[in-house]
Amino acid sequence: MLNFEYRNPVKILFGKGQISKIGKEIPADARILMTYGGGSIKRNGVYDQVRSALAGRSFAEFGGIEPNPRYETLMKAVEIVRAEKIDFLLAVGGGSVLDGTKFIAAAAPFQGDPWDIVLKKAPVTSAVPLGTVLTLPATGSEMNNCAVISHAARQEKLPFASDLVYPQFSVLDPETTFSLPPRQISNGIVDAFVHVMEQYLTFPADAPLQDRLAEAILLTLIEEGPKTLAEPRNYEARANFMWCATMALNGLIGQGVPQDWATHMIGHEITALCGLDHGQTLAIVLPALLEVQRERKKAKLLQYAERVWGITSGTEEERMAEAIRRTREFFERVGVPTRLSAYGVAPAAVCSIPERLERRGWVALGESGEVTPAVVNRVLAVAA
Amino acid sequence: MLNFEYRNPVKILFGKGQISKIGKEIPADARILMTYGGGSIKRNGVYDQVRSALAGRSFAEFGGIEPNPRYETLMKAVEIVRAEKIDFLLAVGGGSVLDGTKFIAAAAPFQGDPWDIVLKKAPVTSAVPLGTVLTLPATGSEMNNCAVISHAARQEKLPFASDLVYPQFSVLDPETTFSLPPRQISNGIVDAFVHVMEQYLTFPADAPLQDRLAEAILLTLIEEGPKTLAEPRNYEARANFMWCATMALNGLIGQGVPQDWATHMIGHEITALCGLDHGQTLAIVLPALLEVQRERKKAKLLQYAERVWGITSGTEEERMAEAIRRTREFFERVGVPTRLSAYGVAPAAVCSIPERLERRGWVALGESGEVTPAVVNRVLAVAA
Repeated sequence: MLNFEYRNPVKILFGKGQISKIGKEIPADARILMTYGGGSIKRNGVYDQVRSALAGRSFAEFGGIEPNPRYETLMKAVEIVRAEKIDFLLAVGGGSVLDGTKFIAAAAPFQGDPWDIVLKKAPVTSAVPLGTVLTLPATGSEMNNCAVISHAARQEKLPFASDLVYPQFSVLDPETTFSLPPRQISNGIVDAFVHVMEQYLTFPADAPLQDRLAEAILLTLIEEGPKTLAEPRNYEARANFMWCATMALNGLIGQGVPQDWATHMIGHEITALCGLDHGQTLAIVLPALLEVQRERKKAKLLQYAERVWGITSGTEEERMAEAIRRTREFFERVGVPTRLSAYGVAPAAVCSIPERLERRGWVALGESGEVTPAVVNRVLAVAA
Repeated sequence: MLNFEYRNPVKILFGKGQISKIGKEIPADARILMTYGGGSIKRNGVYDQVRSALAGRSFAEFGGIEPNPRYETLMKAVEIVRAEKIDFLLAVGGGSVLDGTKFIAAAAPFQGDPWDIVLKKAPVTSAVPLGTVLTLPATGSEMNNCAVISHAARQEKLPFASDLVYPQFSVLDPETTFSLPPRQISNGIVDAFVHVMEQYLTFPADAPLQDRLAEAILLTLIEEGPKTLAEPRNYEARANFMWCATMALNGLIGQGVPQDWATHMIGHEITALCGLDHGQTLAIVLPALLEVQRERKKAKLLQYAERVWGITSGTEEERMAEAIRRTREFFERVGVPTRLSAYGVAPAAVCSIPERLERRGWVALGESGEVTPAVVNRVLAVAA
C-alpha cells in the first residue's frame, strides 16, 4: 500500500425529506446565493423545498448554469457574489451546478484572472463556503474537492481541485431524482462506474481492502443501475445508485493505490471538441483504453474479470477480452453507446486530441505515465 | 436504506514515516500534553519519533493509561490539563490510550462530575482538541467519536460519544506495530471483525453497497489477519490489517443500516466483572449470540455464509450453523478462544450480567430491541 493522507470533511444528509434540514446547516446571518441549472428544480418541487427550508431568510438566485459549466457563465455569478457580498453558496442541481459553484466559490475572492485556477492550477487560498442539494447522482462532486470547468471561447474543459471547495454539507434525497430523464441516469451510471475503474484497474499495489471496496461499488452499480433505469420511482434502487455514485469519487477507494485518470482526460477533450455528454465520452474511451493497455493492466484485468464478472474459464487473453466485452456491453445495456461512430463523430473530429494533450504538457497520462499521445491515438482508433 | 447523517472530519496520515508530520498538524502555540500507556513506546522508538517530530517545542507527558482505561487514572490527567492550561492532547498508543484521551479531552472543561459524561450521557459541549499516533490496530478509535471508559471502584465499563472528541488527525504507521505482542494483534483482529459484524449481521435493509463494503472488510481480515500474525514484520500485511481496523469502525459502513451492538455491550460487562481482554470477550459472545439469534438474523446469516465463507450447499439450518462454526474457528485460529471456560470463567462469575444490564435500563439490546436480559442469559449459557 502506498502512503496517503486523507480527510473528507463533507457532512452528508442522506434520504427522504433531508432538504428540510439545510436551514440549520447554513449560518443564520449568511448572505446566500442559490445556484442552479436549467430550471428543472422549479418543475420537480426541489426549488420549493429549498425555499421552504430557508423560510424567513432572503437569498439571491443565479440560474442557468449549463451542462459542462462554462467559465463565461460562472463569471457572471462571481460578479454577483462580489457585488452583493455573498458569503454562502447553495448549489442545487447535478454535478455541473456543483462544479460550477465550486469555481464561483474559488473565483470570487481570487486576485487575478480566475481562469488561471483551472488552466495554470493557481493556488486557491480562499473560497466562499458552499453547501449542496444534489439532484443527479453521477459525478461525486457532492463529497469531493474537485470540479471540471469548460471555457467555450477556448474550447477547453479542465479540472481543478482545492480543499477549500469541499461542500460544508450535501443533501442527497433520492426522491429529488425521480423525474430525471433516463439519459442523465444512464450517463450517471457510466460516470460512477468509470470513476471506480480509474482508481482500481491499474496494477496490484497489495491493497486488498481498497480493491474489494472498489469491487463492492462496481457490483452494486451492475445490480442497481439497470434496476433504477427501469424503475425511476423505486426509492431503494435510486438510493443505492445515489450512494454508489458518491462513494465512487469521495476519495476513499483511491487512498494508497495507483490511479489512472486517462479515460477522463481523453473524455474531456472529446466533450470540448464535439460536445458529447461526459458519460458518453467515458463509455467510448474506457473499453478502448482497456483494450490498448491490457498487457500493462493484465493482473488487475484478470482480477476484475473474476470478481466482478465471474469469468473464470479460458486463457488469460480470453478472460481479459471477455471482461472488456462485458464492460462495453454493460454500458450499452444502460443506454450509452460505446463507439464514436454511434454518435456520428468521425475520426477526423478527434484527431487533434493527442496534440492538444501534448500542447498542455500532458505527455504522460495513466498510472505509470505510459499513456503517451501515441497511445491516445491508438485508443481513439479502437474507439472509432 | 435508512436516512442518515454522516460526517467524519478526521485527517488520516497513513504509512511509514508519517509521525514526522505531526508538528505541522498541531497549532504552533499549543500547550501540548502527550498521553501514553505502559511505556512500550519508549522501547519501540515511537516516543523518540514523536519527540523528534516536535523538536523545539515543549510538551508535558502523562503515561500509565492502562488497558480498559480507568476513570481514576484519567482524572489525574484532567487535573494536569486544568492546572497547566493544556490546549492540545496528543495520544500515542492503542485504543485504550486513545479512548482515555478522548475522555480527558471532554472531562477537562466539563462542569460537574465528569463520570456523568459516561454514566448519564451528559452532553459534552466543549473538549480539548486532540490528535493521535496509533500503535495498535483494533478499536477504530483513531477515526471515530467514541470511547469506552472503565470505573474500577464501581466495576463499570461504559461507552460515550461526542463529535467534539473526533481526533484532528491520526497517524497510522504500520511499522509502529511490528513489536506488538501477538496477543494484542489477535485481539485486534477479533475486535475489527466484530465491529463489522455488528453493523452487518442484522436484517436486510436494501442497502447492498453497505453490505458489500462490510463483506470487503471481513474477507480482507480473514485473508490478512492470519498472515500478519505469522509475519509481524510484513509491512503490507500489517498495513492492510491496520486500514481494515480503521474502516471497521469509522462509521461509514453503518450508515443507513440497522446495527446490533449487543456483543460489545455484553462483552464490556464480562471485562468489568472478570477482567478478560476486550477482544477475548467478543470472541466469546459473538458466536453464541449468532447461535441464539439465528432465526431473527437468518437472511443476513445466509448471505454471510455464502459471500464471506463460500458456503452454498446444505439446508438453511446447516448453512447458518456452518457460518457460525467458521466464525468461531476463525477466532480460534487467530489465537482467541471462544468459550468462557477456556479462560477459567465459571458461569456463576457472569450470571449477574442480565441484571446489571437491566439495572442500567438496557432491557432491549440488538437491532430490533430483541436482546432482552433473558436472551442475554441464553447467550451466556451457549458461551459457557
